[in-house]
Amino acid sequence: MAQNIYDDDSFFEGYSRLPRSVKGLDGAPEWPSLLAMLPDMTGRAVVDLGCGFGWFCRWAATDGAADVLGIDLSSNMLARAAADTTDERITYEQHDVDHLELPAASFDFAYSSLTLHYLIDLDHLFATVRQSLRPGAGFVFSVEHPICTAPSNPGFVTDDAGLTTWPVDGYLREGPRTTNWLAPGVVKQHRTITNYVQSLIGAGFMLTDLVEWGPSPEQIQEVPEWDVELERPFFLLIAAQLS
Amino acid sequence: MAQNIYDDDSFFEGYSRLPRSVKGLDGAPEWPSLLAMLPDMTGRAVVDLGCGFGWFCRWAATDGAADVLGIDLSSNMLARAAADTTDERITYEQHDVDHLELPAASFDFAYSSLTLHYLIDLDHLFATVRQSLRPGAGFVFSVEHPICTAPSNPGFVTDDAGLTTWPVDGYLREGPRTTNWLAPGVVKQHRTITNYVQSLIGAGFMLTDLVEWGPSPEQIQEVPEWDVELERPFFLLIAAQLS
Repeated sequence: MAQNIYDDDSFFEGYSRLPRSVKGLDGAPEWPSLLAMLPDMTGRAVVDLGCGFGWFCRWAATDGAADVLGIDLSSNMLARAAADTTDERITYEQHDVDHLELPAASFDFAYSSLTLHYLIDLDHLFATVRQSLRPGAGFVFSVEHPICTAPSNPGFVTDDAGLTTWPVDGYLREGPRTTNWLAPGVVKQHRTITNYVQSLIGAGFMLTDLVEWGPSPEQIQEVPEWDVELERPFFLLIAAQLS
Repeated sequence: MAQNIYDDDSFFEGYSRLPRSVKGLDGAPEWPSLLAMLPDMTGRAVVDLGCGFGWFCRWAATDGAADVLGIDLSSNMLARAAADTTDERITYEQHDVDHLELPAASFDFAYSSLTLHYLIDLDHLFATVRQSLRPGAGFVFSVEHPICTAPSNPGFVTDDAGLTTWPVDGYLREGPRTTNWLAPGVVKQHRTITNYVQSLIGAGFMLTDLVEWGPSPEQIQEVPEWDVELERPFFLLIAAQLS
């Protein structure tokens, strides 16, 4: 099973202070790019894999979803999600997404934000999602970009001449990476873009969009220090449909 | 128009000594991966964009293609391609692929090896290829991976602790990059994977495979110093079909 780092108290405390935890979707700089990849939710049955505090679930319901199932491994996350949710169309369930089973042909849209890079068995998840979707359904997910998950020592380096780079190693060596992000010993699974794309297509999806995310010129104007985020993409956003 | 560096004498002399120039497809380490993405050529009308010495054109004819059109900008390349070709099914034409026109619905397969990263107008090329293909046709191409075209100073760096990395900068800043490879002042166009994928899909193609190429375990066993190529992918291989 995937590491349940969100139930580590010091990690959870740090995560809860991030802009995306305090402000929700508007605190996530990649949200406008994800939003542009989403279909209208009206009347759709939606599943959110790794729903966290339930921000997307509530957005989907507000956008007109018929019902929304949010799934997460973390008791911490789900407790706050439940506390922050009054809409009866939204249900939360606690499951390890790495061992998930979903009912067949039950959803019109699947979503996952920054969760799949924790999973060990991506093929299992894609097959599970695939069979749970109805004809014409879509699937949009975000992960940390492989350029960011690959390095043994992820971080920017500025050399004597003032050039800032993101040193990459091990990109084609897939597998676990342990980093200290909010808490020591956070384990993510490094996968290539090849792997994400081939696994999706192999599961019977058609790839409809792929975005290596960086801040927009407007975002950099608002937060000038994000300029460095153009040196390498931080997120990978992918949209797919049943083929 | 794209830079015609292959008609620069010192570049051409260096290029002519590369294993892929001397041994052909078997001297190109990514060829087995490309081959696995190719359909059977039997009976197909094939176009090769940036055909160079014509190695792929001759392979396609040997594999059963009905006719093969090889296109290149370089007089040097086409002179040797013609000298090395006797098969009457193969025709070579000199054009700038950046301003190419192709007859409508005329080909069953399009191929391009390590050419598109020289082009300035990718959308024009994809639209040109799209309209030149018949229903069910495929399109396979390779480019230098954006991780390799992005950096202002491309190269491996080994730090004091012995860690070898490939420092990346400017990944999300698309545009020309000038490097000294075989000759000074070689200009390539850096594009993100986002750009390649969105441009393809936007032109009406369905993406069927995407491979970030590195050497196989067998290739590393044969040439142990290629181990470093696993630190970052060197080529990007993409397969698409008319959607």
